[in-house]
Amino acid sequence: MKVRRYITMAALLLSAAATSAQQGTAAEETATVLAPLPRQVILIIGDGMDEQQITIARNYLRGAGGELLLDRMPLRSAVQIETSEDSVDGKPVYVADSANTASTMATGTVTSIGRISTSAGDDRDLTTIAELATAAGLRTGIVTTASVTDATPAAFATHISLRLCEDAATMVDINYHDIPLGECSADLKANGGKGSIAEQLAASGVDVILGGGTAHFAPIAEGEATSTLELAQRNGYTVVTDAEELATAAPQDKLLGLFSEGTMPVRLQGENGREAEDPQRSWLNQLHPYLGSVTLPDPMRCVPNPAFSGVPTLRQMTDAALAHLSDNNDSGFFLMIESASIDKQSHERKPCGSIGELEQLEEALASALAFASEHPRTLVMVTADHAQAAQLTPYESLFAKFPIPVFTPGKVARIVTPEGGHMAVNYATNNFIMEEHTGAAVPLFANEEGLGRIPPFIRQSRIFTISREYLGI
Amino acid sequence: MKVRRYITMAALLLSAAATSAQQGTAAEETATVLAPLPRQVILIIGDGMDEQQITIARNYLRGAGGELLLDRMPLRSAVQIETSEDSVDGKPVYVADSANTASTMATGTVTSIGRISTSAGDDRDLTTIAELATAAGLRTGIVTTASVTDATPAAFATHISLRLCEDAATMVDINYHDIPLGECSADLKANGGKGSIAEQLAASGVDVILGGGTAHFAPIAEGEATSTLELAQRNGYTVVTDAEELATAAPQDKLLGLFSEGTMPVRLQGENGREAEDPQRSWLNQLHPYLGSVTLPDPMRCVPNPAFSGVPTLRQMTDAALAHLSDNNDSGFFLMIESASIDKQSHERKPCGSIGELEQLEEALASALAFASEHPRTLVMVTADHAQAAQLTPYESLFAKFPIPVFTPGKVARIVTPEGGHMAVNYATNNFIMEEHTGAAVPLFANEEGLGRIPPFIRQSRIFTISREYLGI
Repeated sequence: MKVRRYITMAALLLSAAATSAQQGTAAEETATVLAPLPRQVILIIGDGMDEQQITIARNYLRGAGGELLLDRMPLRSAVQIETSEDSVDGKPVYVADSANTASTMATGTVTSIGRISTSAGDDRDLTTIAELATAAGLRTGIVTTASVTDATPAAFATHISLRLCEDAATMVDINYHDIPLGECSADLKANGGKGSIAEQLAASGVDVILGGGTAHFAPIAEGEATSTLELAQRNGYTVVTDAEELATAAPQDKLLGLFSEGTMPVRLQGENGREAEDPQRSWLNQLHPYLGSVTLPDPMRCVPNPAFSGVPTLRQMTDAALAHLSDNNDSGFFLMIESASIDKQSHERKPCGSIGELEQLEEALASALAFASEHPRTLVMVTADHAQAAQLTPYESLFAKFPIPVFTPGKVARIVTPEGGHMAVNYATNNFIMEEHTGAAVPLFANEEGLGRIPPFIRQSRIFTISREYLGI
Repeated sequence: MKVRRYITMAALLLSAAATSAQQGTAAEETATVLAPLPRQVILIIGDGMDEQQITIARNYLRGAGGELLLDRMPLRSAVQIETSEDSVDGKPVYVADSANTASTMATGTVTSIGRISTSAGDDRDLTTIAELATAAGLRTGIVTTASVTDATPAAFATHISLRLCEDAATMVDINYHDIPLGECSADLKANGGKGSIAEQLAASGVDVILGGGTAHFAPIAEGEATSTLELAQRNGYTVVTDAEELATAAPQDKLLGLFSEGTMPVRLQGENGREAEDPQRSWLNQLHPYLGSVTLPDPMRCVPNPAFSGVPTLRQMTDAALAHLSDNNDSGFFLMIESASIDKQSHERKPCGSIGELEQLEEALASALAFASEHPRTLVMVTADHAQAAQLTPYESLFAKFPIPVFTPGKVARIVTPEGGHMAVNYATNNFIMEEHTGAAVPLFANEEGLGRIPPFIRQSRIFTISREYLGI
């Protein structure tokens, strides 16, 4: 950044001198040549967007012979996901969560599950790419379809030992129906910490924060007499709560957009709210799985989710963020955009929800690429944080000729695709109300600016390094 | 090919003329400049080698922070897998098998499950890349750790309506313990067909055929008085059956190497022959899955499979094939190499077997790359035919804090990795003795020769086109 600043300053001086000498035009041209264009990184994260999810969405949205916008990106790489035990130099752990993976992308350091940009074992704050960008005079933005306090967005701007500590009311004795899930008392301001994720966001230097999460800004901030939302306003944030306010907010304002209580509604859902379901086993089949008969769930279509029309789309949030971040800005920016519910809907065994959310990512990507085509030094990367449970499985078993019931031990959704095919999506990583993540490497896509900068295989921490080097910070 | 032949001929004439004029050296140099080098395509197929399988193998063989040889390839692309109903212009089917996918790679045409280079619905023979290569004067080779009559190798050199028709004794009334699985009576020679896969291989023009499958060459060939093996010998094949014979076979011979009855033994297996197992559920847990306790299978190590030492490695077969195909050959070749048991061991829920088989693929790739570095116009591609069931899942559930048993509804293997980590591999696509395939796009890797020729996303049929265009046939 220092070099760029000197050049900008030199250009200004040149320009001023030239104007005083009535030679403005030529000198300004020289200045334009000398001053480099601002640089931008747009990092789009499809939470849980592995190859299974992408193929399911491709088949549904474009057909088996079709192409997503992702498929047309000029660069494709694979990203090895890493996490570790929660100790210094802890052993590797092979399946990660969104907290540690976003922390690794944001800070370049591998950490343990549940942590938000703090180090495994010794709980040190890890400097994020957004903090480096702010310090260097660049703008920063965070856009998500989750609550802005959720793990992925949080990791780019806050530091806390546990992702669940999203607000001032959820710092100690966190539980779910009396089941203890952890706590963040060491992160209380009273104990020398930075407070909850929402409080840290409200006090952050991030220029644009858009997503869900009003519920997390309602609690009284620790040591304050006001809500966390009021704290944010006091810190200079203009708060918007619907698409119209978002579209009309003054571009120079620091912007906090909160469009739902928590996670934003998804675009698509199964007919009649259906999700993946258990095969129905006859009495004989329950005596032995090779006896009797098994009825698989009826095929279903994906239909619009009525609740979705009440919130801005990911594309609208992306467009607003790009407008704010680029307005009268010659220093560049870092923007993280998350399509969160590919993962969340997969946890809940709702393939239509994941498909609609991936479609939202595609639209946000289209906006990012349009911006990049008008702002040449813009690196657009799209990746996932980790793989997920959903599997595209045969609609008719490979072993259907055997005269016994062959069926998933988990839950399955059978989807009619717009091209008239039938697609089965299997969820069978556990027996709980939420599926597990999986550990496969995930794809990374980039626009032309990635060519020569991103090799065909990287460790996840490299995403931080690539961003930092590209921005020159 | 015609152009190359003319140039070679012109070079020979030039050389002859020059020798007669006592100017041999200079003219030979000119000839070398004029005649293009031969071109080779080496297509390596990891059967079922999707991102989950690759990551499982990477973690085990190189560690979570390590790199496979695959990861160092300069080009990475993704391949959309396609298949269809068995009718002309049939609707898409979203999960494929090794027969239709190998057929698509071999012929450039999408076909239906179970078919070997014949068309969906109307059962036309589809010309393969190996047949085109032979017709153009190039050599061809097929190497596999399966039986050479298995779907993947078969699709490059034979045409039949059903993959199960591997030998002359398995053409009609094919059954498994009296369960009918199909038949190929239309493919009988008596009915105007080409006969079984083994018979077609025995009569084929493929220069090198290496793998398992003695059992399929033992039956008397249809309309002959001899075994299919003797038919192959009559057709000019030198038959070898162990590593020593393989290493010493005269390079100019057409070579048929059969090193095991069927699929060749794999390199690694679970301790005590263990595979993925059912969680053990207490009596209370069987009343309700949230009650009582569930014991997951004990962790295990992968150990060498004693049977493996009796057969040539995939690398030895690859080296032999490359030596035969390149010996005194100025016309180039097409070689398909399959690491078959990544898939087969995943069907059987044996993660150690898949890992060892992927290690074999890595070694074959090393040989292919070494060959390519000495023979500049060699395109090396590595891909998978389809995705598989295995999933790398959390060793400890993401939801372990909930005081209820959280466990897979399928089968799981818990593997101790050489770096001291613990890796869980889940198999839960069905309740049958064999897991299903899955439908995700698969990776494709290539050496430098692929750069500019292979975009970041392709349909599987493009592998045929790329090979054909590269070879100029």
